[in-house]
Amino acid sequence: MRAVVYNGPHDVTVTDVPDARIEEPTDVLVRITTTNICGSDLHMYEGRTSVETGTVFGHENMGVVEEVGPAVTRIRVGDRVSVPFNIACGTCRNCTHGWTSFCLRTNPTEGVDGAAYGYANMGPYRGGQAEALRVPFGDVNLLTLPEGTDHENDFTMLSDIFPTGWHGTELARMEPGDDVAVFGAGPVGLMAAHSALIRGAARVFVVDKEHDRLALADKIGAIPVDFSAGDPVEQIMDATQGRGTDCGVEAVGYQAHDPAGDEHPELVLDNLVQVVRSTGGIGVVGVYVPEDPGAATDQAKQGRIPFEYGTFFSKGQHMGTGQAPVMRYNRQLRDLIVAGRAHPSFLVSHELGLDEATDAYAHFDARDDGWTKVLLHPESSR
Amino acid sequence: MRAVVYNGPHDVTVTDVPDARIEEPTDVLVRITTTNICGSDLHMYEGRTSVETGTVFGHENMGVVEEVGPAVTRIRVGDRVSVPFNIACGTCRNCTHGWTSFCLRTNPTEGVDGAAYGYANMGPYRGGQAEALRVPFGDVNLLTLPEGTDHENDFTMLSDIFPTGWHGTELARMEPGDDVAVFGAGPVGLMAAHSALIRGAARVFVVDKEHDRLALADKIGAIPVDFSAGDPVEQIMDATQGRGTDCGVEAVGYQAHDPAGDEHPELVLDNLVQVVRSTGGIGVVGVYVPEDPGAATDQAKQGRIPFEYGTFFSKGQHMGTGQAPVMRYNRQLRDLIVAGRAHPSFLVSHELGLDEATDAYAHFDARDDGWTKVLLHPESSR
Amino acid sequence: MRAVVYNGPHDVTVTDVPDARIEEPTDVLVRITTTNICGSDLHMYEGRTSVETGTVFGHENMGVVEEVGPAVTRIRVGDRVSVPFNIACGTCRNCTHGWTSFCLRTNPTEGVDGAAYGYANMGPYRGGQAEALRVPFGDVNLLTLPEGTDHENDFTMLSDIFPTGWHGTELARMEPGDDVAVFGAGPVGLMAAHSALIRGAARVFVVDKEHDRLALADKIGAIPVDFSAGDPVEQIMDATQGRGTDCGVEAVGYQAHDPAGDEHPELVLDNLVQVVRSTGGIGVVGVYVPEDPGAATDQAKQGRIPFEYGTFFSKGQHMGTGQAPVMRYNRQLRDLIVAGRAHPSFLVSHELGLDEATDAYAHFDARDDGWTKVLLHPESSR
Amino acid sequence: MRAVVYNGPHDVTVTDVPDARIEEPTDVLVRITTTNICGSDLHMYEGRTSVETGTVFGHENMGVVEEVGPAVTRIRVGDRVSVPFNIACGTCRNCTHGWTSFCLRTNPTEGVDGAAYGYANMGPYRGGQAEALRVPFGDVNLLTLPEGTDHENDFTMLSDIFPTGWHGTELARMEPGDDVAVFGAGPVGLMAAHSALIRGAARVFVVDKEHDRLALADKIGAIPVDFSAGDPVEQIMDATQGRGTDCGVEAVGYQAHDPAGDEHPELVLDNLVQVVRSTGGIGVVGVYVPEDPGAATDQAKQGRIPFEYGTFFSKGQHMGTGQAPVMRYNRQLRDLIVAGRAHPSFLVSHELGLDEATDAYAHFDARDDGWTKVLLHPESSR
Repeated sequence: MRAVVYNGPHDVTVTDVPDARIEEPTDVLVRITTTNICGSDLHMYEGRTSVETGTVFGHENMGVVEEVGPAVTRIRVGDRVSVPFNIACGTCRNCTHGWTSFCLRTNPTEGVDGAAYGYANMGPYRGGQAEALRVPFGDVNLLTLPEGTDHENDFTMLSDIFPTGWHGTELARMEPGDDVAVFGAGPVGLMAAHSALIRGAARVFVVDKEHDRLALADKIGAIPVDFSAGDPVEQIMDATQGRGTDCGVEAVGYQAHDPAGDEHPELVLDNLVQVVRSTGGIGVVGVYVPEDPGAATDQAKQGRIPFEYGTFFSKGQHMGTGQAPVMRYNRQLRDLIVAGRAHPSFLVSHELGLDEATDAYAHFDARDDGWTKVLLHPESSR
Repeated sequence: MRAVVYNGPHDVTVTDVPDARIEEPTDVLVRITTTNICGSDLHMYEGRTSVETGTVFGHENMGVVEEVGPAVTRIRVGDRVSVPFNIACGTCRNCTHGWTSFCLRTNPTEGVDGAAYGYANMGPYRGGQAEALRVPFGDVNLLTLPEGTDHENDFTMLSDIFPTGWHGTELARMEPGDDVAVFGAGPVGLMAAHSALIRGAARVFVVDKEHDRLALADKIGAIPVDFSAGDPVEQIMDATQGRGTDCGVEAVGYQAHDPAGDEHPELVLDNLVQVVRSTGGIGVVGVYVPEDPGAATDQAKQGRIPFEYGTFFSKGQHMGTGQAPVMRYNRQLRDLIVAGRAHPSFLVSHELGLDEATDAYAHFDARDDGWTKVLLHPESSR
Repeated sequence: MRAVVYNGPHDVTVTDVPDARIEEPTDVLVRITTTNICGSDLHMYEGRTSVETGTVFGHENMGVVEEVGPAVTRIRVGDRVSVPFNIACGTCRNCTHGWTSFCLRTNPTEGVDGAAYGYANMGPYRGGQAEALRVPFGDVNLLTLPEGTDHENDFTMLSDIFPTGWHGTELARMEPGDDVAVFGAGPVGLMAAHSALIRGAARVFVVDKEHDRLALADKIGAIPVDFSAGDPVEQIMDATQGRGTDCGVEAVGYQAHDPAGDEHPELVLDNLVQVVRSTGGIGVVGVYVPEDPGAATDQAKQGRIPFEYGTFFSKGQHMGTGQAPVMRYNRQLRDLIVAGRAHPSFLVSHELGLDEATDAYAHFDARDDGWTKVLLHPESSR
Repeated sequence: MRAVVYNGPHDVTVTDVPDARIEEPTDVLVRITTTNICGSDLHMYEGRTSVETGTVFGHENMGVVEEVGPAVTRIRVGDRVSVPFNIACGTCRNCTHGWTSFCLRTNPTEGVDGAAYGYANMGPYRGGQAEALRVPFGDVNLLTLPEGTDHENDFTMLSDIFPTGWHGTELARMEPGDDVAVFGAGPVGLMAAHSALIRGAARVFVVDKEHDRLALADKIGAIPVDFSAGDPVEQIMDATQGRGTDCGVEAVGYQAHDPAGDEHPELVLDNLVQVVRSTGGIGVVGVYVPEDPGAATDQAKQGRIPFEYGTFFSKGQHMGTGQAPVMRYNRQLRDLIVAGRAHPSFLVSHELGLDEATDAYAHFDARDDGWTKVLLHPESSR
């Protein structure tokens, strides 16, 4: 089958790889109809991870079930399904408490809880930027979708970024009526803003400096805040009569840059601590890493982030972090899409065939204007 | 001052009463700009309660502060305020845990926790269908509003029915993405539906038989279910592929009637138990009373409701009940109104002067077509 | 293998039945070391259910794994395990939200969510009062225990009554520092009292009339209330200076009797509504049934319970009900046993061989003095 | 009246000051029966804060009501009361949501939410290490106690450290059955351990190096971990079979020292991130400050703490921080004391007269062996 394969930094190609197939009795084989390129794929693409060459990328997958293992009883051949990026066993302690993003059994990597498809350190699982994907523990992991092709570009957001953005609001313990500050208007930040508005935020401020992204924030009913035009904390403080917001979401991660383009890993956390009111919550879904060998300082190399912790404590704030347990949210988000109350496809800028992946990675990595979110449809490549 | 006074069953008049005034150092005196007639006022109007003649009605009040007692430090003269229908001391055990609807100190009536303005059994407090209102513990109870007159008809819903409808969704422990069944499309039921949609329901079914009310449900994005056209449980089961809804709200109360017009106090609870799926929640904000001397059966006279409890248990459902603690929600709801994301004034059918109250009660009590919600503006009477 | 088989009302015998065996790839076969007789087994024994003759009883099981199906990856041969009475698929909507007691897939019975071993209406699964038990979806359902034989009589309570009693406190939303009223000092009521004390109750009142059971309540630190010596509501009101308790647990069920021995299915709910303070919670784990053909009144036959609902509403109470999702609690309770902080074996009155089951049922059903809780050890029968 | 007055670093004396008196209509005047020296008083004593000379110290106060202002309606002369260290208005947005430790109105200091008695930056309120104390908003703030003198040394812990330790377990979102790691066996750490055990922890590890404190931990049922004898993370990992604990409490603060005595403000947070399992919570009640001019590094001077944030994120942990809202817990903790289920007085090492305060400060500041917790009884000085 055809698949997007990593050959080294800034080098992915679409080539033939052995067909995905059922390996365990609980496996399900999914023919991919849509698979997205994720911002976190670029970390690997840019060579900032330890991912091995030959890896098939792709953890945002959906498709139609082609075959099921002999122990599969819930999922059936022909089911249209969304594949959460987390691979969960469904029966370990974390899974049974709803933390499928921290499964204790599916990732053999020492010291890492949680597995995913086609990603560095997340276990030996091939990705889904391919014609087909093997899904372990299929009954556990797969979400069924209404048959047909309706809402394809909305449903494809259910595998990762829509639940991840939603998780940001959950980690921040957002309540209806809250004012919310979202830092970062990339796909995850925009999904967090969309989520906050769906669940009853009063006002959602979205901070970024890219005008196309801020325009999307505005389009979905959020309030864009351009940090290249002035201190975003001051802008939001002014808009809230000095009270600050009730909570905030971090959707940037450790590669935060100031307006001058310098990397400051503590910058966004500092801003959130300042802008969120006392007793408020901060949900962190932008990625921070335990080790970053290429970082500028010794602290950053060890994943130490010297943010304004004393202020964080004095304000009695709280903070939740980490990868989203997709299964906790994806059914409800699917139902909101079907009911016409969520429409995450507003993000999509490009729909391409699988064979166009090489170019797509180059453009997306270059942050070329308008390349917000790329979907690959393997079938249209045929 | 002028006020709406109860003289006996089906007899209210607008007459002169002694001026409201500061009596305690923590009191605040509010000049009323808008006061609504509530469906529960009709219980008194119809003579089904023990309310005394001479009572000034009115527990849905808002206005402008005219005077404050010497121990008042938060509220200031000139503040525009919403007055929650609950009168709370703010310092008893229930109040400090957020249950201002069950204040242990403000109601001297034996065995009743919680007080209100101008209402049977809820303590010796005059109502606000008048030119002015004395508000005990003003710093505790009053919600400040943006100055001016904007959103007057939205803000006037903050004193009771908007928080009460919201409380219904809270008691049902509604979550975003849920399908919700609301029984009753009166003002509280419509507010529950509006609330559910604001906080992220997927679909909200609203059950009633009055076409004007069902039309309002449809207008705000809910799905009207006409129980005169067929069993509402079956209709909703069909619409949910037999799954039922995730939760439900009771907004009818003990005076439930079947399509033939017969009173069946257990009818709505039965329907909710049937239509809500296993493990789901039921929020009850329709009123049930401990004693109903005029009821048809001995059981009903004692407030006993023989609903399908065995099914309730077998399905592992849960139920929350009781009057809404308005202060827990009204600030957030105010902010949603200001942000343009809530607009409860869609309910308003009539705006009248205080002197028109006698007629308004008669029409409202007769359920005359189109009399959904009546606001009285005392100033316009002058 | 030998097993306890139901032949008809008041007639169980220990006889040979076909060996339990692996039938599905996800099955696990458990050799039973301890299996308890449950109070709910007596409903079947007394002929008040539709259970079929030939049924093997037993849903409180533990033992050692003898064989695992080819798709089992977590549980291993030789593991000592507790078997929750609920049979859960682990992947349906209710299971993934932690409601394994309402699994949507394991019980083929129309209209019933949730399955169990050897029980009327709970699916076609044989019970574990036998030498061995087939456990469906073994990776999902089984809890591993420390190897060996320590704490056997404590761990055997993990399959049902300890989690069920705990669930009662959870449904009541008990908080540390609460005063709690538990109605019923049978095994489940005593487990609820033990649970409440472990999780920080201030005082736990346990209401019953049997002196041996009240003595056990006293022994574990609860306050016994003998309802044959006076109205239990008054007794608890006196002890709480008229405030009532913060919450309550129903551990009696629809077969409640007054001191004179007459059945009053609404009696315990009435008492709880009266004794729990306004805004408090009631957790119902005593069983109520949708249909009770042998009941005295038409209402009771339909599972309608005419309790004081008007008072329930006026006090703003809430209520949770239903069978316990054992998996939500059993790991933590196991850890509390291992740490020496829970010791539910205080209940055990008899340890017998499997072959003594016939007699044991007769004594337990007769409520013979001192027959609090019977454990059967199949191996000791050999 | 006599009071403990701060004259400068390491210099407090007991001298005459103007009598405390009613100043506002909502004030209550309390005659102090017991007032404790708190570890945080030593920050001021040592000169590491901006506290002004002449300040009367003391925020852990209890006593008997001597006089009430004219607007006080709940508290009465003669009531025995505990005085929470937070001074709350009871009616601002934070107070009405239960965050009395972040009151928006009682502290005029720019940028600081929350007030306290006799403390740097916490507003212009005199402390209670004196014969009497003025309590603002007395109806809001005071907790009544059973009359008499029983449990005096237990009840005196209700003003601060027992609720603060409890808050640590709450911020960590501890659940019954959890293993808990508490760092710091000072008074707050020991109270956190006592709290965790009361609310159903399986095992509580308490980390310190002082043998007298570790002995107290052992005495109350916790597991002492001596960090001078080896890496505490390794010790706890070994005891938990490598799983780590379910949650943790930080009760040390920014002045953490390694075994060699060097200050490392990030040390305890690092240890907690390492020892708490993925998805677990960390409750921080040890104090961190926004500015620490005397600190060793520029980062520390700005309150920046470069802990292992990348690991914190990768493990999906969450963290809550800040001063305890005493009123949220003190009633329940009082009831647990009365019921004999909490006994925080185990901490008390010294009971002295007020006039002995000067010496007591010196000994306590020197961490003299056995000076765990000092109570001052002003009456016994007379």
